[in-house]
Amino acid sequence: MNALGFERILGGVCAPVGFLAAGVACGIKDEGKPDLAIVYSERPATAAGVFTTNQMKAAPVMLSRERVLGGSAQSVVVSSGNANAMTGGRGVADALAMVDAVEKALGITSGQALVASTGHIGEYLPMERVLSGIEQATDELSSGGNTDAAKAIMTTDTYPKELAVEMLIAGRTVRLGAMAKGAGMIHPNMATMISVITTDANLTNEVMQHWLEQAVEWSFNRTSIDGDQSTNDTVVMLANGAALPEGYEMTRDEAELFFEALCWLTGHLAMALVKDGEGASKLMRVVVNGARENLDAIRVAHAIANSTLVKCSFYGSQPNWGRIAAAAGSAGVPLDQSLVKIALGEHTVAENGVPVAFDEGELREILKRDEIEITVHLGLGEGSAYYLTCDLSAEYVEFNAGEKS
Amino acid sequence: MNALGFERILGGVCAPVGFLAAGVACGIKDEGKPDLAIVYSERPATAAGVFTTNQMKAAPVMLSRERVLGGSAQSVVVSSGNANAMTGGRGVADALAMVDAVEKALGITSGQALVASTGHIGEYLPMERVLSGIEQATDELSSGGNTDAAKAIMTTDTYPKELAVEMLIAGRTVRLGAMAKGAGMIHPNMATMISVITTDANLTNEVMQHWLEQAVEWSFNRTSIDGDQSTNDTVVMLANGAALPEGYEMTRDEAELFFEALCWLTGHLAMALVKDGEGASKLMRVVVNGARENLDAIRVAHAIANSTLVKCSFYGSQPNWGRIAAAAGSAGVPLDQSLVKIALGEHTVAENGVPVAFDEGELREILKRDEIEITVHLGLGEGSAYYLTCDLSAEYVEFNAGEKS
Repeated sequence: MNALGFERILGGVCAPVGFLAAGVACGIKDEGKPDLAIVYSERPATAAGVFTTNQMKAAPVMLSRERVLGGSAQSVVVSSGNANAMTGGRGVADALAMVDAVEKALGITSGQALVASTGHIGEYLPMERVLSGIEQATDELSSGGNTDAAKAIMTTDTYPKELAVEMLIAGRTVRLGAMAKGAGMIHPNMATMISVITTDANLTNEVMQHWLEQAVEWSFNRTSIDGDQSTNDTVVMLANGAALPEGYEMTRDEAELFFEALCWLTGHLAMALVKDGEGASKLMRVVVNGARENLDAIRVAHAIANSTLVKCSFYGSQPNWGRIAAAAGSAGVPLDQSLVKIALGEHTVAENGVPVAFDEGELREILKRDEIEITVHLGLGEGSAYYLTCDLSAEYVEFNAGEKS
Repeated sequence: MNALGFERILGGVCAPVGFLAAGVACGIKDEGKPDLAIVYSERPATAAGVFTTNQMKAAPVMLSRERVLGGSAQSVVVSSGNANAMTGGRGVADALAMVDAVEKALGITSGQALVASTGHIGEYLPMERVLSGIEQATDELSSGGNTDAAKAIMTTDTYPKELAVEMLIAGRTVRLGAMAKGAGMIHPNMATMISVITTDANLTNEVMQHWLEQAVEWSFNRTSIDGDQSTNDTVVMLANGAALPEGYEMTRDEAELFFEALCWLTGHLAMALVKDGEGASKLMRVVVNGARENLDAIRVAHAIANSTLVKCSFYGSQPNWGRIAAAAGSAGVPLDQSLVKIALGEHTVAENGVPVAFDEGELREILKRDEIEITVHLGLGEGSAYYLTCDLSAEYVEFNAGEKS
């Protein structure tokens, strides 16, 4: 184990004991691209979930959200290429038919399958293909199917995203695994993100729900993919307890370690999603300090991370810090501009609200980096927050002007 | 006079009697581009103004905002190429030196000149050049200087924007004139808009302030240039009363006519700003009906008008109405998706929250138009609102990735 107390391992969602996965191409997408994944726990598992707060929730979100409240689930089916959103009663019936088919094929109790979908909004699912895909995927489930599954949930991602870690708890090896699919764009804007997290720890669903909400808040919700906004955003977690004695209760230290590992996992997946944002060429970490309270800092960081002009500046590697100041000022948070300090990487560019002399050539070199830290100190208190974002490129626009992208 | 009761005339800010203007190049911008404008009323005038609510207000905004509270002003100086924002005490001193120079050159009472600036943030003004520009502009003031002035306030606009109308009030011809400069981009985002409006009506500053606020709310504030957001947004209005007998009070009908004309003027300038947005190829008018209240409708319209994905769809002429639905759902307004109806132009694409069959080829033709109406009916009440926006193009991104754009 490393200094963190956990270690990265291979295996994605299949790394924890007792989890199988598969990914197949069933014809939702064109050209035989993989578009249906199933994750399955061989034993009953507790479940937790975090879902979009968009008012136009997709049918699978409505269904899975309700099921997670029951506290347990043994399988998750994810389809990509069609979001099953804005599809009314027929969409709900289709989502239900998907989980029914999974439960039947796997022989699990009714109500124990969850569903998530991602893709184009406002089209009905091709159910014949989807159901035959479910049949095929359940047939192909294996402990080595994690990468196939991670590939099958992709939409505009350029590579599959999966991670796993292991740690020692009560002298046993406990594992956490995850896969995620990214967002169209790194903007709080309809870009669906889906993640499935698995563990062989045993957790009550109350504890797991609480931890998952925290972990999502500090990762996916700080990437300006913003789980709040898409019709389909879904993060679900299953814990099957296979690694620990039945009824084992973690000590406080063990619980802390596990939670740290969960946050590391979601944090690194969130970073991967941002880096793989459509047309993104660099990752920007916006850090806001010195706010009156954390909530103020979050609002300011969000405004900067989502400013189109700021994102364009970074695409062009321009040290245009005035746009950062203006974005901060537009957050609706009372500020005193004479106290504001702004730094790009290690270079302070403004202090006390006025420009500071800097070597423009040196700064341009910093701005060409793959990862850039933007630090804004408001000088008002102890509140702080961070946000991950990426630059906005012409490639992004061309991509999203395309058909059904 | 036309059916509206007023008629479009030439002359911009110089159309009303007693107003002179000039625009010169003083070296704030490179390559001898015009960058300083002055508008001057030969007689004392009442004043009103609407300014940005950004927390990082530029020095000229702080100064002019305070002066407008005094209720009168006889001149406005506008510089472009440098926003005099994030420039601290030195910026305030520079703004003050500008109005002092104007007052001295024109021989008007101290406190009767206003100032606005637009351009790059975080740089000090080249005051020697600015002051000599003020000298030159005051020398060149003329009743035909309106277009020179409109050109001198431009930053990324591709053409000057000015309008004027005349109407009959108390048997006299009363005129309203205006010029405006657009925003970097049609997004609530640091894009400075500046407008100067003149009239030879006589108005108390209380009435004029109220009317101007309403007119701005229904025009510039509904274009997703969003006056709330830039460091420098400024709309100022001067009324010198030259066309009407001293102390004349408009009848209710006359006041309505004048207010209508003012709204027509600001509305058409706002449309011109949107059409001339950087890289914009089409104008979209987002109309939201059936909200519980107008405020809800505004929030939903704003969310749609500012969705990067929606704007990209229209750039690509794609009938991707799911993005419109998702943007509406992300506005934070409680909705019932089963009641939602969406139309593009005259074609309904979704009803009761589900897709409606439509001729995709026909719809694509509509989407290729220069102006497109997006109508969303929420089915919840009588609240309605509209928003003007434009598409987001790859050209926009390339432009804003450039140096000091």
